[in-house]
Amino acid sequence: MASDSFEVRAIGRVESPLTDADSAPRQGDEGAPDAWIEFGSDFLDALDGVEPGDRIVILSWLDRADRDALTVHPRGDTSRPPAGVFATRSPHRPNPIGLHPVEVLAVDGPRVKVAGLEALDGTPVLDVKPVLEGEISER
Amino acid sequence: MASDSFEVRAIGRVESPLTDADSAPRQGDEGAPDAWIEFGSDFLDALDGVEPGDRIVILSWLDRADRDALTVHPRGDTSRPPAGVFATRSPHRPNPIGLHPVEVLAVDGPRVKVAGLEALDGTPVLDVKPVLEGEISER
Repeated sequence: MASDSFEVRAIGRVESPLTDADSAPRQGDEGAPDAWIEFGSDFLDALDGVEPGDRIVILSWLDRADRDALTVHPRGDTSRPPAGVFATRSPHRPNPIGLHPVEVLAVDGPRVKVAGLEALDGTPVLDVKPVLEGEISER
Repeated sequence: MASDSFEVRAIGRVESPLTDADSAPRQGDEGAPDAWIEFGSDFLDALDGVEPGDRIVILSWLDRADRDALTVHPRGDTSRPPAGVFATRSPHRPNPIGLHPVEVLAVDGPRVKVAGLEALDGTPVLDVKPVLEGEISER
């Protein structure tokens, strides 16, 4: 029988002025600050070809999330009826992986500066992918 | 010190006519077939609000990937110079999480049918998120 669980590891961490989940923007286009990603030295070769101006998707591990939540009030608004977490972008979900489409501002060795990242300081980063042409529009 | 590794678990599996990695399309808009996702019964409540016509992103676990790869030839084309995996959408990467933007065609209890999914039959599914307005354009 195929395995049902798998191990992911941090390839880097977010360095951001955002430290408080309650005051953080919910999406990157809602006033999130620029941030640096500090990648582990083992992963430097994997960054080859990531350049300023690139549009990328950062996959993060939302380590403050409640993994047992199956329904939430959208955007934390208790006046709205609860919805299944798979119909929302709530961080609270069985596998709390965040998706953050951002633009690369600078690359300095294992450090990459990006625009408008709503992840909190210290958030583990799992992956970085280029946005495919036509996949994600301007925000 | 903060932990550097985390456990993810399959919330469901892909049921698809695609069984051969070598012949599978590399992206969903390159002729990928419709497919069903069979979710675990524990996660039925989390699907509440996912409806036909919704545009969603499926996060998969690419369980045939080489997690030690740091550079690859883009699209497997050895005439192209190798690039860091974070500058490509190769499945081979330290945390092989696939992103698949698709449209929901049907929902039948714990089974969800989607259009144009390039994931192989049996691929574990880790998460489902709605596409945010303006985030992913028509393909």
